[in-house]
Amino acid sequence: MTAPHPFDPITPGEIQLATKILAAQFPNVQLRYKKIDVQEPIKSEVVPFIEAERLGKPLPARPTRLLQVLFHRMDSGAFHKALLNAGTRSVIYAKELPKHIQGPVDVDELGEIEELCLGHPAVQAEIAKLQLPAGVTVCNDPWIYGTDDINETRRLFQCYMYICETNHPQNNHYSTPCKFSPVFDALTRELVRMDYLPGGPDAQTTETQPWKPVNTVQYAHDLLDEPLRTDLKPYIVQQPQGPSFSVDGNVVSWQKWNFRVGFNSREGLVIYNTTYDGRNTFYRLSVSEMTVPYGDPRGPYHRKQAFDVGDVGFGITANQLSLGCDCLGHIKYFDGYRSDAAGQPVHLKNVICLHEVDNGLQHKHTNYRSGAATVVRNRQLVVQMICTVSNYEYIFAFIFDQAANIELEVRATGILSTVPFENQKWGTTVPWGTNVGPGVMAPYHQHMFSFRMDPAIDGHNNTVFYQDSVPMPEDDTNPYGVGYTTEETVVRTSGTANTSVERHRVFKIRNDAHINPITYKPVSYKLMTSPSQMLLASPRSFGLKRAEFATKPIWVTKYQDDELFAGGEFTNQSKESQGVEKWVRRNDSVENADLVLWHTFGLTHNPRIEDFPVMPMERVSVMLKPDGFFTKNPALDVPPSSQAFNKSTLHPEAAACCGSGNPKL
Amino acid sequence: MTAPHPFDPITPGEIQLATKILAAQFPNVQLRYKKIDVQEPIKSEVVPFIEAERLGKPLPARPTRLLQVLFHRMDSGAFHKALLNAGTRSVIYAKELPKHIQGPVDVDELGEIEELCLGHPAVQAEIAKLQLPAGVTVCNDPWIYGTDDINETRRLFQCYMYICETNHPQNNHYSTPCKFSPVFDALTRELVRMDYLPGGPDAQTTETQPWKPVNTVQYAHDLLDEPLRTDLKPYIVQQPQGPSFSVDGNVVSWQKWNFRVGFNSREGLVIYNTTYDGRNTFYRLSVSEMTVPYGDPRGPYHRKQAFDVGDVGFGITANQLSLGCDCLGHIKYFDGYRSDAAGQPVHLKNVICLHEVDNGLQHKHTNYRSGAATVVRNRQLVVQMICTVSNYEYIFAFIFDQAANIELEVRATGILSTVPFENQKWGTTVPWGTNVGPGVMAPYHQHMFSFRMDPAIDGHNNTVFYQDSVPMPEDDTNPYGVGYTTEETVVRTSGTANTSVERHRVFKIRNDAHINPITYKPVSYKLMTSPSQMLLASPRSFGLKRAEFATKPIWVTKYQDDELFAGGEFTNQSKESQGVEKWVRRNDSVENADLVLWHTFGLTHNPRIEDFPVMPMERVSVMLKPDGFFTKNPALDVPPSSQAFNKSTLHPEAAACCGSGNPKL
Repeated sequence: MTAPHPFDPITPGEIQLATKILAAQFPNVQLRYKKIDVQEPIKSEVVPFIEAERLGKPLPARPTRLLQVLFHRMDSGAFHKALLNAGTRSVIYAKELPKHIQGPVDVDELGEIEELCLGHPAVQAEIAKLQLPAGVTVCNDPWIYGTDDINETRRLFQCYMYICETNHPQNNHYSTPCKFSPVFDALTRELVRMDYLPGGPDAQTTETQPWKPVNTVQYAHDLLDEPLRTDLKPYIVQQPQGPSFSVDGNVVSWQKWNFRVGFNSREGLVIYNTTYDGRNTFYRLSVSEMTVPYGDPRGPYHRKQAFDVGDVGFGITANQLSLGCDCLGHIKYFDGYRSDAAGQPVHLKNVICLHEVDNGLQHKHTNYRSGAATVVRNRQLVVQMICTVSNYEYIFAFIFDQAANIELEVRATGILSTVPFENQKWGTTVPWGTNVGPGVMAPYHQHMFSFRMDPAIDGHNNTVFYQDSVPMPEDDTNPYGVGYTTEETVVRTSGTANTSVERHRVFKIRNDAHINPITYKPVSYKLMTSPSQMLLASPRSFGLKRAEFATKPIWVTKYQDDELFAGGEFTNQSKESQGVEKWVRRNDSVENADLVLWHTFGLTHNPRIEDFPVMPMERVSVMLKPDGFFTKNPALDVPPSSQAFNKSTLHPEAAACCGSGNPKL
Repeated sequence: MTAPHPFDPITPGEIQLATKILAAQFPNVQLRYKKIDVQEPIKSEVVPFIEAERLGKPLPARPTRLLQVLFHRMDSGAFHKALLNAGTRSVIYAKELPKHIQGPVDVDELGEIEELCLGHPAVQAEIAKLQLPAGVTVCNDPWIYGTDDINETRRLFQCYMYICETNHPQNNHYSTPCKFSPVFDALTRELVRMDYLPGGPDAQTTETQPWKPVNTVQYAHDLLDEPLRTDLKPYIVQQPQGPSFSVDGNVVSWQKWNFRVGFNSREGLVIYNTTYDGRNTFYRLSVSEMTVPYGDPRGPYHRKQAFDVGDVGFGITANQLSLGCDCLGHIKYFDGYRSDAAGQPVHLKNVICLHEVDNGLQHKHTNYRSGAATVVRNRQLVVQMICTVSNYEYIFAFIFDQAANIELEVRATGILSTVPFENQKWGTTVPWGTNVGPGVMAPYHQHMFSFRMDPAIDGHNNTVFYQDSVPMPEDDTNPYGVGYTTEETVVRTSGTANTSVERHRVFKIRNDAHINPITYKPVSYKLMTSPSQMLLASPRSFGLKRAEFATKPIWVTKYQDDELFAGGEFTNQSKESQGVEKWVRRNDSVENADLVLWHTFGLTHNPRIEDFPVMPMERVSVMLKPDGFFTKNPALDVPPSSQAFNKSTLHPEAAACCGSGNPKL
């Protein structure tokens, strides 16, 4: 078996190798694995390797293949991080981490906490008080415990409890939340506390009462009261000659694009080493972090702040996709692997999909004198993953097109995180949420994403700057007052910047060593930002201190190995972030440097009732577009759109009839 | 023949009727028609009619069918407007308009000016000085003459001249602009002045010199130097059971939506009387105006300010679409009619198209315990027109979906308006434009659109308000500092508002008479704005005075018949706007009123060289979404996405091979 490529995801053999190395390192100690994954390769070793690949030259030595392992010693409970050299099968280090650091949730742990919770006598006692009828039970979602105590070192989970009918695997328990919520220590397995949730519009709580049945608002097709629509006709995408892409291992080639599909348990999908027509564009693209703080001010809801990348992981939560459900047309799937708690590989089938879509027109011009038209369609290549984080779903897609654009599209869907709300009096509402069904309210919240871009615009030394559009001064150069121009600000040292709609601020990444022969400006790509409201939480709150990346839309850092995650390496129960806000303070020179651009964008999501019981997707998009990278539209050579190629169908006209009133001659 | 529906476009018979009525009214006078079209029906007459239609009740009397005619008397040149009653075949009025008012450009006029220009001895003399080689000639685009003189009353055109190779109908003359530009009086046919264009980075002009040939940057497939891509495989949309829509005349029914497709020569596509599941949503939706001011401060470019709706018309410039080129799948086309200068109907075939698209996933949730997933795709209905305004193309689409959303999508494509630029010295650039080819520069400009929404959210008395997301005060109600809430501002009198990204401002239209039984709030739709930079031109400039609608993103007016166009009725050579900025000053009460909401959005377009010679589309979108209009997600009853229905294809895996390096067990 040949060695994996530096950007290849972990193999099952490597997971087993890591377990073996650590078993030898810790003889007679039981280890519980939280994560076994590839460690990001050292960039200085990788760049010469991929440059040789790009230029078709003899390959230098393969970069060191590193594996990263997070685990607990089961004798002491101590949390460890190990770095292994897969080539030499040796331990680089295996160190105990400070007590206040919590590793991410693992899949097995989630199930264990769920079971622990339901089996606990105190929980059973609460359930008994509900006096549930037959066919109805209680289930729970263990939640990440957002920090509210600087001294806390226990590994905690807050279980949110729901009434759940047992007759269907898709019963919507989020429609019927309970008003008690136990907190557990995941290591000692002890019940730390039974929290009671406010039941009405204020913070008041009550002891558990017998459940007064309400109708569940169901989303599953089987469980709807109303019949399904019968007038939706099939829409079939056929690609009789196959797809326009080709795939070799994890390398994808499509329409002058070339890149590698990466996958890890934390970020899930990563795009590596994109080139267009043989030219470097981006070294690495990923969603590096996200946080979802809730706006309900009442305890214990202030602890609802998920970091879905750092606390859990998009690789871990990625859906195993099904042919014909998530995409249309000709689909290629990529698999992944994760480790289970015992250190054994778990196959994650079909976690990434690849397919083409037709997105309408890309360019058109009609010469109005001759009537002659040039029409080119916008074929795109979509690389997609869908992550289920308990109640919520995120659909992430990197979309490549023939005009050398790369779009990151995020669709938020799934089920709102709900809270109990007895609005017995007509008209009762709260100012921080929406009543979405009988006895259930959905609090306001924000989804804040960090898009990490490691650019390589014709090489690795790049410069970030922004351009504002501003009126020209009202002087002799602008006699009619219509002139406007651009003002340029170069980000010379690592730091932050704001977006500005009013000034039409555009962020660009350029390579000063490569000048466009027509524009006389350095070659560049621009980032079409998604200007968004930043975090609403108070600067005094843990909510903000833990997620400083979400206080500014733009961050520029100098590249350093191991600086991959905007919120820092360990976000679970973090007291404050250890990410971009720390790295920018180095005041590194980032002009003509190997830099990283981070864009924080998001959704302030004040739920509509229409977002319940499952949410029509809300779409956010950011784009990377060439700007002076080429000497003309790079999609000119895409063949014209024609009926011979596209085979569309004309709608039949109603039979001609004089009395039809149709506006025909 | 039955009478047309009040929202039906003009029929050829009606055009002929108008000509006949006016010939009788003006015996022995030759009339030159600029426009014969339906006049928007009187709303107070229409509403009872369409309400009876909606409720299936006996129809009241049909609203008066009115025709509007703009014409010149050829004896005096005087510009007239007439209003005719098509039912009684009578003239309501036919009045001469003030001398400073210019009607829109008509298609015949454009051709006449072009011919006049090329045949004029002074132009011929300039062309002779170019000493063009064989196979090369000069063509011209007559341009709307943006006002720069408050006293001007002549009807003027500025002709921009281009070198043009004669061997192909799609030669890109915009790549080779000339440096002289004659101005003509369209009525007297006189040459008013020969302007000379700056040839370099400053305002200096020179006499016409022999042409120094440069390479034309071509966009047409036939004319490219490089070969076309050969690796793009067909992508065919099949709808074997036909479309999910049905069409009866101009009524479209699709997935609980019902609406009428309108068409007029000014706005082109108009959407009338949308209902969802029988409930009123919007009375009328259209792009009411747009303006494109240029940022090049030098004369005569300060006069480049097109109002593509008011000066020309999207109906007039709408492309006649071709099956299989502009859309995929099963396509229904709608035709339109316009009048020619002689008052004869001209058939505009296939100017609007209707088809379905699949836009990925609409909602998905996987129960992580059971693995059971609910997946619903996002089928959409697209109503589209594509307009060619000389060099530029706009693609407008109203997109309806199954979750009761309506999106207005604008794609800007086509060819940049260019100016000559002899950048003989390496590195010469201007601060208000981009060098896009040899001898050619594309100046900065803005595209400002006005989306006019006449809402009928469960009825015609509605209220506009906006909601900002703001932190809660740091007091006892917010002990942890994470709480946030919304602040509501009602637009009580006609006026304007700003967008705000920082406050996540959301605009909503509600009906206070209809309270949602779950949320306890009035039913509403929200407008997802496209926050944009407003006009950059100076308040002193004609550029701004003529387009005040483009100085504020949100306008709310009380409905009045005849107030359809944000920039006013007559924009061609207007001295100042006569539109929304006037109407809001009435300080009408717009709370629980028949109101109109106008959203100005746009693109500050500082050209990329990649936008030349034809521009990859730039997409802008605004959306109308139900917000408390329903009691749950209205798309729940859309059938699940399944392979049996969608018939996708699995990518074949490479033959299993131990040495492949594939990360497989």
